[in-house]
Amino acid sequence: MQIDVLSLFPEMFEGVFGSSILKKAQEKDAVSLKVTDFRAFSGNKHNQVDDYPYGGGAGMVLKPEPLFRAVESVRDDQKTPRIILMCPQGERYTQAKAEELAKEEHLIFLCGHYEGYDERIREFLVTDEISIGDFVLTGGELAAMTVIDSVVRLLPEVLGNKQSHIGDSFSTGLLEHPQYTRPVEFEGMMVPEVLRSGDHAKIDEWRKKESLYRTWSRRPDLLTDYVLTEKEQQWIKEFVTRKNLDS
Amino acid sequence: MQIDVLSLFPEMFEGVFGSSILKKAQEKDAVSLKVTDFRAFSGNKHNQVDDYPYGGGAGMVLKPEPLFRAVESVRDDQKTPRIILMCPQGERYTQAKAEELAKEEHLIFLCGHYEGYDERIREFLVTDEISIGDFVLTGGELAAMTVIDSVVRLLPEVLGNKQSHIGDSFSTGLLEHPQYTRPVEFEGMMVPEVLRSGDHAKIDEWRKKESLYRTWSRRPDLLTDYVLTEKEQQWIKEFVTRKNLDS
Repeated sequence: MQIDVLSLFPEMFEGVFGSSILKKAQEKDAVSLKVTDFRAFSGNKHNQVDDYPYGGGAGMVLKPEPLFRAVESVRDDQKTPRIILMCPQGERYTQAKAEELAKEEHLIFLCGHYEGYDERIREFLVTDEISIGDFVLTGGELAAMTVIDSVVRLLPEVLGNKQSHIGDSFSTGLLEHPQYTRPVEFEGMMVPEVLRSGDHAKIDEWRKKESLYRTWSRRPDLLTDYVLTEKEQQWIKEFVTRKNLDS
Repeated sequence: MQIDVLSLFPEMFEGVFGSSILKKAQEKDAVSLKVTDFRAFSGNKHNQVDDYPYGGGAGMVLKPEPLFRAVESVRDDQKTPRIILMCPQGERYTQAKAEELAKEEHLIFLCGHYEGYDERIREFLVTDEISIGDFVLTGGELAAMTVIDSVVRLLPEVLGNKQSHIGDSFSTGLLEHPQYTRPVEFEGMMVPEVLRSGDHAKIDEWRKKESLYRTWSRRPDLLTDYVLTEKEQQWIKEFVTRKNLDS
């Protein structure tokens, strides 16, 4: 997979692209990561990439030329790229989108830092607009790195053990159950007895129930599309009773 | 504001903490950013920070001691810190949470890279669990950087113009309207005439309508808590009619 990032702050990417899974993925030739400073494509002698908005108002708007031209410069004729604009108006990013992007050959990310993008970029250049959430960032760089990390770890060659993202959060539709490791007592805080019992059926049941409890109490929206077994329906009745007693 | 990050990959933060708004915020003394490698607090000679889960299963679990001790090492007796665990089970991050955190004196972020955190960390150490979205990342580092960027830019001294985050996405409850800048024609693609008309009442109305249209078509969930004016109700009727004609 080839990934190109167009940004005015290429130095932001060094630490993240040079460590951990993204470093390993490049070493294994699973992905090629390149950052291009699109200021070089301004097409004017002052290297100006933004300008005042038509119709007035505060803030600056990214001009169309530098981004259109920078995309041309990284385009590979053998591949059809997904051209992705990181912006708060975009489609909310999810694991399903990560899986979709992980099947592509070439991703190009556009990252801006200003009040907005000239609308012609959205209309005629990009194929996807993605938002990682309802919060405001200084620029699209951190959002692009987030998407890139979540996509690259899904590439078949990247995680050592092919199974290692099967147990991920969201893969069962529920939040993960609590985990404990040694020591069995830390400053008076104990590991629950059931996990030390060696009774694997009991441990499995405890984990399923805790996973359901955590989802029910923290993220009930995830249960909307989840088909409950009879036992799970019974557990939810218990949770409701417990909650009513507590309050 | 003091921000401490506890991570096993401190080098990931260099590019982001050393550029753009986070660099400027440190130069202005608006924030002090420090990354601590919590492996130094393992308390064992092999510097082991993770171990197998009680009860069996794949993957490793972060042990309690290194994180409890690393938090003690960065704690400032004069300040009550928010101790924030970045994890997919956490509360969904929003702009409202960014504004809440921006009022604090000391934030401590815990970033892990493994199957899970020993539950005693959640129960007895952290004050907040935050998720930036329903997708899986290699570790908490990018999520922590994202939260830090969104919080630091809200500090009063950081953005040059005190007004510059007033026009942000989400501040009106609607998505932003389209923006255009020069040139008026780029490869046959034009700036809409209304924006070049100089008629400010008309421009203002066009922007409000486009902002509502964009929200209605892309993020109707944002309209649930939004109180529509009579004119806006009329516009939505138009959008519905237009959509029915299109399909």
